[in-house]
Amino acid sequence: MLIVMRTDATAEEVDSVCRAVREAKLTPHPIPGKSRTAIGVTGNLAPVDPGAFAGLPGVIEVIRVTRPFKLTNREMKPEDTIVHVRAGHCSNKPVAGGGPVDIGGPEIVVIAGPCSVESHEQTIGVAAELKRLGAHILRGGAFKPRTSPYAFQGLGAEGLKILAEASTQTGLPIVSELMATDDTQLIEQHVDIIQIGARNMQNYALLKRAGRSKHPVFLKRGMSSTLEEFLLAAEYVMSEGNRNVILCERGIRAFSDYSRFTLDLSIVPELKRITHLPVIVDPSHAAGKRDLVIPLARAAIAAGADGVMVEVHTNPKKALSDAAQALTLDMFAAMMDDLRLLAPALHRRLGS
Amino acid sequence: MLIVMRTDATAEEVDSVCRAVREAKLTPHPIPGKSRTAIGVTGNLAPVDPGAFAGLPGVIEVIRVTRPFKLTNREMKPEDTIVHVRAGHCSNKPVAGGGPVDIGGPEIVVIAGPCSVESHEQTIGVAAELKRLGAHILRGGAFKPRTSPYAFQGLGAEGLKILAEASTQTGLPIVSELMATDDTQLIEQHVDIIQIGARNMQNYALLKRAGRSKHPVFLKRGMSSTLEEFLLAAEYVMSEGNRNVILCERGIRAFSDYSRFTLDLSIVPELKRITHLPVIVDPSHAAGKRDLVIPLARAAIAAGADGVMVEVHTNPKKALSDAAQALTLDMFAAMMDDLRLLAPALHRRLGS
Amino acid sequence: MLIVMRTDATAEEVDSVCRAVREAKLTPHPIPGKSRTAIGVTGNLAPVDPGAFAGLPGVIEVIRVTRPFKLTNREMKPEDTIVHVRAGHCSNKPVAGGGPVDIGGPEIVVIAGPCSVESHEQTIGVAAELKRLGAHILRGGAFKPRTSPYAFQGLGAEGLKILAEASTQTGLPIVSELMATDDTQLIEQHVDIIQIGARNMQNYALLKRAGRSKHPVFLKRGMSSTLEEFLLAAEYVMSEGNRNVILCERGIRAFSDYSRFTLDLSIVPELKRITHLPVIVDPSHAAGKRDLVIPLARAAIAAGADGVMVEVHTNPKKALSDAAQALTLDMFAAMMDDLRLLAPALHRRLGS
Amino acid sequence: MLIVMRTDATAEEVDSVCRAVREAKLTPHPIPGKSRTAIGVTGNLAPVDPGAFAGLPGVIEVIRVTRPFKLTNREMKPEDTIVHVRAGHCSNKPVAGGGPVDIGGPEIVVIAGPCSVESHEQTIGVAAELKRLGAHILRGGAFKPRTSPYAFQGLGAEGLKILAEASTQTGLPIVSELMATDDTQLIEQHVDIIQIGARNMQNYALLKRAGRSKHPVFLKRGMSSTLEEFLLAAEYVMSEGNRNVILCERGIRAFSDYSRFTLDLSIVPELKRITHLPVIVDPSHAAGKRDLVIPLARAAIAAGADGVMVEVHTNPKKALSDAAQALTLDMFAAMMDDLRLLAPALHRRLGS
Repeated sequence: MLIVMRTDATAEEVDSVCRAVREAKLTPHPIPGKSRTAIGVTGNLAPVDPGAFAGLPGVIEVIRVTRPFKLTNREMKPEDTIVHVRAGHCSNKPVAGGGPVDIGGPEIVVIAGPCSVESHEQTIGVAAELKRLGAHILRGGAFKPRTSPYAFQGLGAEGLKILAEASTQTGLPIVSELMATDDTQLIEQHVDIIQIGARNMQNYALLKRAGRSKHPVFLKRGMSSTLEEFLLAAEYVMSEGNRNVILCERGIRAFSDYSRFTLDLSIVPELKRITHLPVIVDPSHAAGKRDLVIPLARAAIAAGADGVMVEVHTNPKKALSDAAQALTLDMFAAMMDDLRLLAPALHRRLGS
Repeated sequence: MLIVMRTDATAEEVDSVCRAVREAKLTPHPIPGKSRTAIGVTGNLAPVDPGAFAGLPGVIEVIRVTRPFKLTNREMKPEDTIVHVRAGHCSNKPVAGGGPVDIGGPEIVVIAGPCSVESHEQTIGVAAELKRLGAHILRGGAFKPRTSPYAFQGLGAEGLKILAEASTQTGLPIVSELMATDDTQLIEQHVDIIQIGARNMQNYALLKRAGRSKHPVFLKRGMSSTLEEFLLAAEYVMSEGNRNVILCERGIRAFSDYSRFTLDLSIVPELKRITHLPVIVDPSHAAGKRDLVIPLARAAIAAGADGVMVEVHTNPKKALSDAAQALTLDMFAAMMDDLRLLAPALHRRLGS
Repeated sequence: MLIVMRTDATAEEVDSVCRAVREAKLTPHPIPGKSRTAIGVTGNLAPVDPGAFAGLPGVIEVIRVTRPFKLTNREMKPEDTIVHVRAGHCSNKPVAGGGPVDIGGPEIVVIAGPCSVESHEQTIGVAAELKRLGAHILRGGAFKPRTSPYAFQGLGAEGLKILAEASTQTGLPIVSELMATDDTQLIEQHVDIIQIGARNMQNYALLKRAGRSKHPVFLKRGMSSTLEEFLLAAEYVMSEGNRNVILCERGIRAFSDYSRFTLDLSIVPELKRITHLPVIVDPSHAAGKRDLVIPLARAAIAAGADGVMVEVHTNPKKALSDAAQALTLDMFAAMMDDLRLLAPALHRRLGS
Repeated sequence: MLIVMRTDATAEEVDSVCRAVREAKLTPHPIPGKSRTAIGVTGNLAPVDPGAFAGLPGVIEVIRVTRPFKLTNREMKPEDTIVHVRAGHCSNKPVAGGGPVDIGGPEIVVIAGPCSVESHEQTIGVAAELKRLGAHILRGGAFKPRTSPYAFQGLGAEGLKILAEASTQTGLPIVSELMATDDTQLIEQHVDIIQIGARNMQNYALLKRAGRSKHPVFLKRGMSSTLEEFLLAAEYVMSEGNRNVILCERGIRAFSDYSRFTLDLSIVPELKRITHLPVIVDPSHAAGKRDLVIPLARAAIAAGADGVMVEVHTNPKKALSDAAQALTLDMFAAMMDDLRLLAPALHRRLGS
């Protein structure tokens, strides 16, 4: 931390700030400059709240220097975290074969499925098709976070059972969203990866509960989350003991007049640089329209993402939520072709 | 809803969209224009998901027209909602006198207190001072939503007891944040108004639980929430039966290089125009530094807010959280003087 | 400036950075910490480009400390700048009486007029009415910056003549926008204050040209300008010799779903704190609808602004630009009544 | 356009709005709904200002339907615009061979060079290296838009001569920024493509002047520009007669805590969909640090961009501006290798 004094700060004020630093069990390092003095602060193991010094007389600014993350930090663990997922491994549901999927390793991972589980027929049908076309993990919402209380809220427990059955039949592991701590055990029984949605990225009760689960956690970035807040949310999960966190960029809120959110692909290489956790990109929610999904999926992989999550619907016209952004099966097949061509040009493979 | 067709859409495509509209039990109104056709859609009682039509052949855009809120909507209930709060009324703790406080009526309401409850002495002390200086409601965090899992997380249940004691001694009603559904009953025992924080504005499990409480709900706007999302969050609470919702603007995330968030005061007159619910402004969290708090509190009231919520600390240097933005008692007294002068110039009163 | 080294930076890397600092004629101050070393840098008179050090081996981050403004900085000139304006003083057009207007002094200033000068009749008519209702300065666009090349672009030179005539008849000084360096002399002949619009806040050729004018400059904040960029734009004008700069907040681009821009009123007290220049707020362009203008004008004054600029049209239905946000004359009169009541409660006056 | 009436609007108000629509030479189409009436408006050849109707009694909202662009619109010109550039073709400087470069065709184009022209030696040196490594066009700033008036402002005319010499020696066409209308002829003599920078995207005098040039125009998106504003800026250039406009995404202003701007790659496929103009991406300015540039360049191409513009410096430590983001020559060579691998996987080629 660096405490910057006003140009007209007195020697007494500088001394008084140094005393306050020492009282906080830290070490002050005054640096007298031409026009003002700054005071370096060292000795902190945990991050220090800048506010403790910002209000002292003579102080004009307090600047935090060391980053506040530990368990997510690549400086602490240089090698990549690879999250191994196998259908039924955590949830103990019977599954038809299905080798493990590695997220964060050399192979690119494709997660696909409908926005919401709408019916048994729709879900089982799309799962079989997606398996055939090469998807690695099945997504589907049983509990749906909807902006309006009057919109379709998902099938709940019934939806989870349908997802589990789709998994049993295809061998595809399942990722689905946990919205309330009370539903954790129910979710754990049926799904293989617990998703924390963007709206709940700072729902700390939920993060802590997921942190005590044996299931990997798929953490979506909040729509106005900074990189630091995103990693600190992961830190909440990891500090409870769960080290299998997968990060997912899904678009931030800016001022776009043509897409629902602004997909922030720059965060992909930056996350790969400063954390060891796997990074997935969801272009469907960001775009809000299907025409943009395939080019953005390609761009995500080219930027270094470990995989993509896309929404697919056998009949988008009939979808109960987010219809405009769901790929048709034909489009999904075209995307898989694109990624299959692209992966080797990036020294990666598209897992079979 | 308005469905806009491509300039080259065929008559068959227009017909097919009209058919889809009728299948959804709605009425299509084709409007042929010089260069393209648009189709007005009427007959919907609840809002319709635009996605259902956006993907049809020939459609270039779907525009939603009617607003999706009902219970919060001033078109449905023209008169202002006034939330009556009395210390101990819901929580049944013993209180020393303390008349009711009306939020949303002609009197401006001041909610003040420390960011966190840090100790018995600090809280009881500041509460007595705030009462003396004219505050109407005491705020204080017992459960604290902190970005980092390594930051001070609040005193929890112990903090709630301290708040309740401060209320008993001063007669001031208490507002404090609910962060987890499991804590609802505990919170209800001790506080008079349940706060839902900005990070949880779209935590629907929490909103629904608060909607089943008898306590008024103080709902903070999420940091990237639109006006529509904000009102729909209130709609979640209200649709469970709780009509006593107080809206609070606390700053949005933009690109400011001098304040923590960007206080969006324009939302105050707009909310007053389209909803009947009371509107409070919290300038402390938005500013992130105490120098801006008093001018922004004045501005909030001048814009039409029904009150302000500010952080006050007897000794900001020692505060365990958000120290830089807490007013000193002297500053709080100065703010009250300012508001006392200002209120009559706005045809309002500062409640005694 | 503070250069933060990586935790695994070698002593050689630290030495090498210190050497680079000395080569740049600056003084390095290494501060060894528990986990890493930081290097304070002093001795710079002008701001230093952090990029020069950010790329050196072992460096993880470079943090700038001192602010890069000089002429706008209140640390350099503690007393408020008051800009004196008198109709015809710079432009030498004949005027009917009209005492000087002080911007930035104890009196609140109201600048009002139509968005565009549309006709002789409209402008002369509204000017007389505004004068009668207490406006201090007349605004009106002769050259209009329109997003589309197909929208009404203003009357140009003809519009300036109409404005000058309105000024001559009423004694009101004129502010109007300069969009192209080539038009400077023409503008200077007819107007009393040169406006630089938001879209041109970083048009440096224009800023420098205005900096060589004898006319005061009314500088609107760019729609995505930080506080620092805003003050540096003023610094461009001032460094050419023109010290009469008036700053104007007019709304930033965020994600609002109910207003055209997000009026950032927090910048008002912050600007008043760090610069000596006068600060005006334009709520009309930010709001984009007239219902919000009066409450926001009140809020601006309550936040400490030295005045407001509002759009008024005698017949908004017929306005050729920005019709939705123009106040009617009745609304303008109501706003003046509001400000007249408010000013004394803020220890200011509404100039007569 | 669609005019939405209030639920309580009277029949007279609806009639009156229809009358106003007809007075504006447009055709009203009232659509009575269950709860309110909406009025479709057709017949406009040019876009209509919604403001003209927004203020009428009974109107709650006015929604614009048809897009306001014409010359940039792919609906008007379905085939891609390919901009042919040849060193010296417009500027008539002598050049060493150098075949034409096509921007917007099947080949991916790489534009590279230093942020600023700093010296003869630096520029000639880097140009030769870039030519050898496969760059197609040389960039370099002679006039530099700097946020601070105290920062290095570029070498001006001297810089242009150096660029022209680099072009003559290598055959590489030159792109360089025009900041002031007065410099247009000077720029035209030496460069092959005129750049309009992000800060000047709505400097309409400059856009119009560039629109009268014979040189292709390289138009950077403003940092808070919407897609519509971006295309309307291109429309300003094109409506003056210049059809050779190249669009460049360079990052928008959002709230990033790790990059200078937020690169908005989603705009690439959207632009390709709705306009026929070529689209280039500049990842250097968006990232603000070189570690992110190569992954983002790959992502841009994968998203469908027609090329990238990157900053390269032979010795970034010594760069006078934007040092932190400049690629070294080794990094540039690595990027070219990446793009060479990537292009065929996208059914494109990297031009030799």
